Amino acid sequence: MFLQNAWYVAAWDREVGRTPVARTILNEPVVLYRKADGTPVALEDRCCHRHLPLSKGTIVDDDLRCGYHGLRYDAGGVCVEIPGQSLIPLGARIRSYPVVEKWNWIWIWMGEPARADVGLIPNWWWCGHEDWAFVRPDSLAIAGNYQLINDNVLDVTHLAYVHATSIGTSAITDFPAHVEHGDRFVRLTRLVADRPPPPLYQRAGGFTGNVDRAQIVEHTPPCYTINYAGCTAVGSRLPQARRGRSVDEITRSPSASGSDGGDRKIDLMALSAPTPETETTTNYYFGFVRNFGLDDPAIEKILAVDFVNVFREDLVVLEAQQRMMSLKPGAPQIDIRVDAAPLAARRILAAMMAGERPSPAAALR
Amino acid sequence: MFLQNAWYVAAWDREVGRTPVARTILNEPVVLYRKADGTPVALEDRCCHRHLPLSKGTIVDDDLRCGYHGLRYDAGGVCVEIPGQSLIPLGARIRSYPVVEKWNWIWIWMGEPARADVGLIPNWWWCGHEDWAFVRPDSLAIAGNYQLINDNVLDVTHLAYVHATSIGTSAITDFPAHVEHGDRFVRLTRLVADRPPPPLYQRAGGFTGNVDRAQIVEHTPPCYTINYAGCTAVGSRLPQARRGRSVDEITRSPSASGSDGGDRKIDLMALSAPTPETETTTNYYFGFVRNFGLDDPAIEKILAVDFVNVFREDLVVLEAQQRMMSLKPGAPQIDIRVDAAPLAARRILAAMMAGERPSPAAALR
Amino acid sequence: MFLQNAWYVAAWDREVGRTPVARTILNEPVVLYRKADGTPVALEDRCCHRHLPLSKGTIVDDDLRCGYHGLRYDAGGVCVEIPGQSLIPLGARIRSYPVVEKWNWIWIWMGEPARADVGLIPNWWWCGHEDWAFVRPDSLAIAGNYQLINDNVLDVTHLAYVHATSIGTSAITDFPAHVEHGDRFVRLTRLVADRPPPPLYQRAGGFTGNVDRAQIVEHTPPCYTINYAGCTAVGSRLPQARRGRSVDEITRSPSASGSDGGDRKIDLMALSAPTPETETTTNYYFGFVRNFGLDDPAIEKILAVDFVNVFREDLVVLEAQQRMMSLKPGAPQIDIRVDAAPLAARRILAAMMAGERPSPAAALR
Repeated sequence: MFLQNAWYVAAWDREVGRTPVARTILNEPVVLYRKADGTPVALEDRCCHRHLPLSKGTIVDDDLRCGYHGLRYDAGGVCVEIPGQSLIPLGARIRSYPVVEKWNWIWIWMGEPARADVGLIPNWWWCGHEDWAFVRPDSLAIAGNYQLINDNVLDVTHLAYVHATSIGTSAITDFPAHVEHGDRFVRLTRLVADRPPPPLYQRAGGFTGNVDRAQIVEHTPPCYTINYAGCTAVGSRLPQARRGRSVDEITRSPSASGSDGGDRKIDLMALSAPTPETETTTNYYFGFVRNFGLDDPAIEKILAVDFVNVFREDLVVLEAQQRMMSLKPGAPQIDIRVDAAPLAARRILAAMMAGERPSPAAALR
Repeated sequence: MFLQNAWYVAAWDREVGRTPVARTILNEPVVLYRKADGTPVALEDRCCHRHLPLSKGTIVDDDLRCGYHGLRYDAGGVCVEIPGQSLIPLGARIRSYPVVEKWNWIWIWMGEPARADVGLIPNWWWCGHEDWAFVRPDSLAIAGNYQLINDNVLDVTHLAYVHATSIGTSAITDFPAHVEHGDRFVRLTRLVADRPPPPLYQRAGGFTGNVDRAQIVEHTPPCYTINYAGCTAVGSRLPQARRGRSVDEITRSPSASGSDGGDRKIDLMALSAPTPETETTTNYYFGFVRNFGLDDPAIEKILAVDFVNVFREDLVVLEAQQRMMSLKPGAPQIDIRVDAAPLAARRILAAMMAGERPSPAAALR
Repeated sequence: MFLQNAWYVAAWDREVGRTPVARTILNEPVVLYRKADGTPVALEDRCCHRHLPLSKGTIVDDDLRCGYHGLRYDAGGVCVEIPGQSLIPLGARIRSYPVVEKWNWIWIWMGEPARADVGLIPNWWWCGHEDWAFVRPDSLAIAGNYQLINDNVLDVTHLAYVHATSIGTSAITDFPAHVEHGDRFVRLTRLVADRPPPPLYQRAGGFTGNVDRAQIVEHTPPCYTINYAGCTAVGSRLPQARRGRSVDEITRSPSASGSDGGDRKIDLMALSAPTPETETTTNYYFGFVRNFGLDDPAIEKILAVDFVNVFREDLVVLEAQQRMMSLKPGAPQIDIRVDAAPLAARRILAAMMAGERPSPAAALR
């Protein structure tokens, strides 16, 4: 079950060029390429003649030619040439998907094209803003359902167990989390006061003593999540996260770059946009934005290498979960307090998906 | 769905000897071996006692002994010995299949033995004829339905796309194809006049200028296809293919071996006999016969190596097609002009298969 | 179909320690570990919260902590801690299985815990007895149903075919086998008089001439089998196996260790306890006990290496059988004389399994 009318990350911008690229998105085969002017195109990856994936074909100007019998499709999915005949049958066309290039990603709309509204792409303005650096790792192929990834990033208590040796601290569950949610968002805020920073944050921020931390998770269905981690030295006069403040608000406030440590403020975010491939596999796109050490290669490496390894720790857990759920599909489960945010996200998404299914009456029309 | 009452290639003659060989043919497990006098034998590859494949057993004189409890079967599939007991139960027998060794292949009849008529094996007399050389590559294991291979060899326009860098020329679709078909055959003829020879044919034939080409595809259901390619220098007085002439007729006419190029005539044929293993896998047997450069190792290499690589180009396409068809089994498809011959072959085969299914009335008897 | 109320070997004692170990037993995921005092524990390998296998977690004192959100389970499967909350829901528990450590194996009871009777573990007293040596190879992962292994060890005639080059002799089927069975056992006895010993036994026993052999197979459902092989020099005055004598009786009689060969008696047993993983895979636990050459490294190697290779010969047969049975699930089969013991074992087991299924009336209660 997938939400059709939504944007999904189809690829990093750097992954798509003048050679066709194959993707599976919401169980559908999709081929991506760029026109001569660089505009990205997404078509159904299946020739309407004999089903060869068009990603096995070649790009001709702005079009895609099938690698079997040479049928040529324009960027709208219309077959414009069939070698050996001048007439093209009416049905000779394939699906074309709305695509938008934004925040270094190519976003695809899998539902009704008329409803594709660019404004629904999450406003991740830090990507590409000059005061921020954006680390863009390759996506991770995960043998697990995308909602398990939503659950994972919406719950930061697992850091103490899954990431015990990297970014985890057992301090997290000492502080309460506050969960808010609306029709289309879930936000979890946890303020951690006067505690030692976890190892990687310490290296990144150069803190010498304890820190005040704000953890904010902001989730928008079906699968966009910001994991904000703000650190300030204890007693800093810099703005603190408060319940009800969004990551957008907090990060728009001025950042200190003083070297005295006391006023240092670190804003670090993981942006997650896992794209469902099938019910049990996901192409997990994610990146990191920060407002400190923009040109520091050591910090760059921490995020591009060490933090990706943290995500790989999650991968092991998510895939083991999926295998067990596939083995025991009806097994009972209990909910615990930290599930508040993930469960809220699942409820919102379930309602949105239910809204997409035609009613029985509609099926009769 | 397979046609049961037909000959299929079970193996190259060289593949079967005094060690049992396992095959899957039309979903059935088959074991092949030779008697002491060299006669090939095909039995059900399953001991009637505890299901061990007999291909795990050993040959004893003309019989096959199971590798588990030693049950011994004669070439007719009758169990003739059960170690530890003198009485052999009536049901102790397995299927034995009619086999014929012809054209360096071992042919097997999977249907009713009484209907196995050697005359139904295609008359590929060039194999083994002294004026012709027969190149016999190892079969290709293809993860695709055998009818996709029929489609492929019955359509020569794909050469311009799939084989663009090897034997393809875009000239092909400039000339019309003529398709004839009867109850039990499909023939496609295309005459290409005064064009440059494709690279590999040029090397093989030593043509210096343009050539006249005849492409003839002759298909006999369920899966026997001749792809004839004749080349003569432009203006040659040698016999040309005409519509309605069979490959047999054309190739029986005298061949010139003059070195002047003007009268050079090249007759080259690919013989295809793909054997269905399962609905989605095929053991593709094929070979090449030619009437020129019989002792020329360079030409031998072109066929045994380069042309096999051409078939591997098809393999990539066929397997991608099959994967997509398995992913989207009900996807619509359109037909185009070049499908005339493949569609005719599919219609004939469908009718033959329908004729094999017992009618509902027969099932009541 | 598995018998639930029975002991199965879950692991060798050496395989389980202070790191969780995952097993699949009767299709159920199981995690094994030891408490601080060494007591083995077996729990359901699935956190009741979000299904992560607990084998991905860590041992804390006598308990197991989930590697995702830190839920902690005691050895009884009760969740005793949920990080971040003080109340533990009633349903927060997983299955705990009775386990017993005996004969160097850890035995698990998969059925109703109240019925777990240690007395039902087979009395393999030779394991660990000072007059006997016990060779304990690693288990073999077999892609075949466990009853195929029962069949295999209950039938010694296959030695002549499967193990022709190792322990097999064609002499076996010259002598009749006597099969007895009761409610809960099957015993096959075959006395082989005055024949040459098979190669490995000759090396082990140092016989210079012919031997009298006793082959006894004792099987207790669902999957415990002793394959006893006793050898004495021909004409020895030592006790011989007779019909109706159990392996226990025979092996309790004094063993000669004289070096003259005439009175040498070799008692060698393979103990089999294959544990069903799924319907088509088995974790085959087995070992060898002997009363001769206890400290002889050459004999140790014969059993630990050569005899394990004999079992690997069976593995090839069993997996080929399983593949064929999965390919042709409804294929007919005939029974032969040597099936008497395997069929008796299957009948007993089928009756025991039928007794476990609730009657239709019970289902209505």
